[in-house]
Amino acid sequence: MRGWFITLEGGEGAGKSTMLERTHRWLLQQGHTVIKTREPGGTETAERIRAIVLDRDNTNLCPMTELLLVFAARAQHLDELIRPALRRGATVLCDRFTDASWAYQGGGRGLPAEIIAALEKAVHGDLQPDLTLLLDLPVSLGMERIASRGMSDRIESEAVEFFERVRKSYLARAAGSPKRFAIVDASVDEEAVWRQIERALREKLTR
Amino acid sequence: MRGWFITLEGGEGAGKSTMLERTHRWLLQQGHTVIKTREPGGTETAERIRAIVLDRDNTNLCPMTELLLVFAARAQHLDELIRPALRRGATVLCDRFTDASWAYQGGGRGLPAEIIAALEKAVHGDLQPDLTLLLDLPVSLGMERIASRGMSDRIESEAVEFFERVRKSYLARAAGSPKRFAIVDASVDEEAVWRQIERALREKLTR
Repeated sequence: MRGWFITLEGGEGAGKSTMLERTHRWLLQQGHTVIKTREPGGTETAERIRAIVLDRDNTNLCPMTELLLVFAARAQHLDELIRPALRRGATVLCDRFTDASWAYQGGGRGLPAEIIAALEKAVHGDLQPDLTLLLDLPVSLGMERIASRGMSDRIESEAVEFFERVRKSYLARAAGSPKRFAIVDASVDEEAVWRQIERALREKLTR
Repeated sequence: MRGWFITLEGGEGAGKSTMLERTHRWLLQQGHTVIKTREPGGTETAERIRAIVLDRDNTNLCPMTELLLVFAARAQHLDELIRPALRRGATVLCDRFTDASWAYQGGGRGLPAEIIAALEKAVHGDLQPDLTLLLDLPVSLGMERIASRGMSDRIESEAVEFFERVRKSYLARAAGSPKRFAIVDASVDEEAVWRQIERALREKLTR
């Protein structure tokens, strides 16, 4: 049987890195063989593509190019790493996936749903995550949290309205696939966030 | 009025570089302001993407990633260079364009027409070349010509059957848009090839 495919999504300052680590540790403790990876990236070629997408000096990058680069990296990631790992029965834990393209390039940049849907179908029409943990919080709170971090990448430097559209798109996407998504209130303290995630993992992975 | 958009296509060893130079010179002599460019590439970001596509060491690159990278580079090229030049009234002369994606990634790699058509529509549904010069010749003759060249890139290293499919796809694409395409017999000597191109240019550009 193929392994579990779990993705973690959320806006800036939602605590995604911390929860990724805790989820990884928890899965290992439960005896899973875990491949922890991220998007865009996860393979050598995909990381080369990621460098173009996130380069702060790349101020001219047009939205359509950004979308196609993200899906190019994804196709490679699926081919080289995600699909082989799932076939071996490993659990794949991925920091962002196609929901992020709907949120950032669709909602954020305003690209048409038609091309995103065509790309999703062509690249992984046969495969969706089993569980998507969406760390949700008000944009203003997320911005406060990242303000203290210093240097940000090209996408993190967007305006508040951009992130409002990202959040709205994530929630719309979750509403469209309620069985796959667990919406986690990420505005509370770390332990309270983690308790919600652990509950979602237990519910999904014991079925 | 927007400028002329002319593309040059053809398989390996068809003499594309030579004919690109001669076409460029001829257009300048006729008084055109010419932007000569190439795909994948033509802008800084697009050239970074080109380097990933043509890297000989990149043996794992999957066909879908190749297709999406080529269209990512194209979107950027259109946005930064081709569209602004056409708007200024310049003539854009481009070494390969979307017909090459149909030929190489569609015919050569066997990717579905559905996703190529969706990408073409999303990236430049509103804009097609005014004239596409297709340098056509038997694959065996093209291979003979490039054998003497030495070092080849990742795509030039494909097998003969691959280039047979590329040629067939180019001809099918030309059959679908006979007004846009001029099929040039590239098996003859340089002057005879050039005479065909000059005739096609005169016919198209005096209308």
